Amino acid sequence: MKPIWIAIDWGTTNLRGWTMGDAGIMAEASSDKGMASLKPAEFEAALLDLIGPWLAGHTGAPIPVYACGMVGARQGWVEAPYRAVPCAPVHGGELMAVPVQDPRITVQITPGLSQAKPADVMRGEETQIAGALALYPQFDGAMCLPGTHSKWAQVSAGEVVSFQTFMTGEMFALLSTQSVLRLGMGGDGWDDTAFDTGVAEGMARPERLAASLFRLRAEGLLAGLTADAARARLSGLLIGAELAAARAYWLGMDVALIGSSKTTPLYARALAAQGVPARALSVTDCTLAGLTRAASHLAKDKS
Amino acid sequence: MKPIWIAIDWGTTNLRGWTMGDAGIMAEASSDKGMASLKPAEFEAALLDLIGPWLAGHTGAPIPVYACGMVGARQGWVEAPYRAVPCAPVHGGELMAVPVQDPRITVQITPGLSQAKPADVMRGEETQIAGALALYPQFDGAMCLPGTHSKWAQVSAGEVVSFQTFMTGEMFALLSTQSVLRLGMGGDGWDDTAFDTGVAEGMARPERLAASLFRLRAEGLLAGLTADAARARLSGLLIGAELAAARAYWLGMDVALIGSSKTTPLYARALAAQGVPARALSVTDCTLAGLTRAASHLAKDKS
Repeated sequence: MKPIWIAIDWGTTNLRGWTMGDAGIMAEASSDKGMASLKPAEFEAALLDLIGPWLAGHTGAPIPVYACGMVGARQGWVEAPYRAVPCAPVHGGELMAVPVQDPRITVQITPGLSQAKPADVMRGEETQIAGALALYPQFDGAMCLPGTHSKWAQVSAGEVVSFQTFMTGEMFALLSTQSVLRLGMGGDGWDDTAFDTGVAEGMARPERLAASLFRLRAEGLLAGLTADAARARLSGLLIGAELAAARAYWLGMDVALIGSSKTTPLYARALAAQGVPARALSVTDCTLAGLTRAASHLAKDKS
Repeated sequence: MKPIWIAIDWGTTNLRGWTMGDAGIMAEASSDKGMASLKPAEFEAALLDLIGPWLAGHTGAPIPVYACGMVGARQGWVEAPYRAVPCAPVHGGELMAVPVQDPRITVQITPGLSQAKPADVMRGEETQIAGALALYPQFDGAMCLPGTHSKWAQVSAGEVVSFQTFMTGEMFALLSTQSVLRLGMGGDGWDDTAFDTGVAEGMARPERLAASLFRLRAEGLLAGLTADAARARLSGLLIGAELAAARAYWLGMDVALIGSSKTTPLYARALAAQGVPARALSVTDCTLAGLTRAASHLAKDKS
């Protein structure tokens, strides 16, 4: 069985690949050669390290590789300029071709999306959104992609109408490990009730965030707040504040959550507390479906 | 001229001392032996390293040393339990005596303040507030102490009625140097107009903070936002959000700012934009006046 095409998700810190045949995924692989660790001249070698075994003995027409993520950033392999919303999240005619030395492959990168006002950008998530739309073509509503930089996108008629990024995940990481709050939240335990309390407080008084944060420290000193409760409430406060600011996206809308198994259930729980059921989609499924859409677009363009 | 007493400001990262005579400050010194770098058994030696020259040849009654700050924390020299508000910021009868080996000195630590609900704590700032009250005994209003953890205190009839801590300074430091935003804010330039824009936005939409933050990155990529403008607007956004949450403290109140020459003018500028004139007091003046009050209380208690 020969690979028809290869899918690549190339982020800041990781590189993942899947080789795709008639029946779907044939094999997958990953490495830690993320975009941040590579100079432009090193990308092709890093890619071949990962996918080389799938190309062994290949002759004939080159195998197309479709890649998404930070690989297309200005600091990446080749810059794939942003496409401005409103637009379809991925458009097969607007992929960025990357020149490669190896005759066995061609490489195309899906561009990210930009929004002029309020200024915003995404890279990688547009492919996941395209994948979610491939899986649910009639979807009309909000897609939320939790992560280091969470994205909320308004999706309608197959297009991303608008989107907004929140630094929620990065703030959680910095505050829980680098700030004074780290002193009260060692370990990695969890407390659902404390999370719910944080969400409620973050939703109700998002403007008090910088004060609510310090209260975690004070309650640790004065009232015996446990480490598990402190870190769960911190997460809840930040996600609650995000939901408060993103209300226009989800209120009265269908909501789809695209994300990892760790963070996504927290968003689902927080949304459920607001009476909003959210459909959870696997980020890998969406990435592959999005790259498949990019691949099929190109095949169509060529025909 | 002999020292009458010695004032010590002993924080997490620094140790500062002043020897006080009849005419005020006789000499001052500082070192980097902050509380965080010392085990309990090392505090006396660190203190003597700093103030030893002032004690040379001293005989007779020991010279009293009054210290404030994190030296009295649980991880400090000797824990000085918090005093609960409402109360006078410093009370001479409630200082914590520390046993020392050197017969030439006695050491007293001013306790911090705590608030049960919402839970909050301060250590060091209570002495600065006491000093500001010593300098302006009739003060009735809000005292703001900008810093890593900014404090707002409601002060009336010589007491701290309530207070609230904001992690504004620490969030600025983490976001500007550790988060994705660092990529767009190298150097240490400044842009007053961008600061004002940030304050206005932070005040108007404090709940959008996590989104406003990422917009700094997006505008850097899409609209050429300069590093100076990005870091000034980040500062403005955080201070603006703090002012929005602290509105009950300053609205219609007399406001005194106690802080460093770097941050305090920014708070003064942000408050002025809300039509609130603020009196700026030197943190050193206030610390010394507060410790003087502690010292004189004790003299009075003994008489």
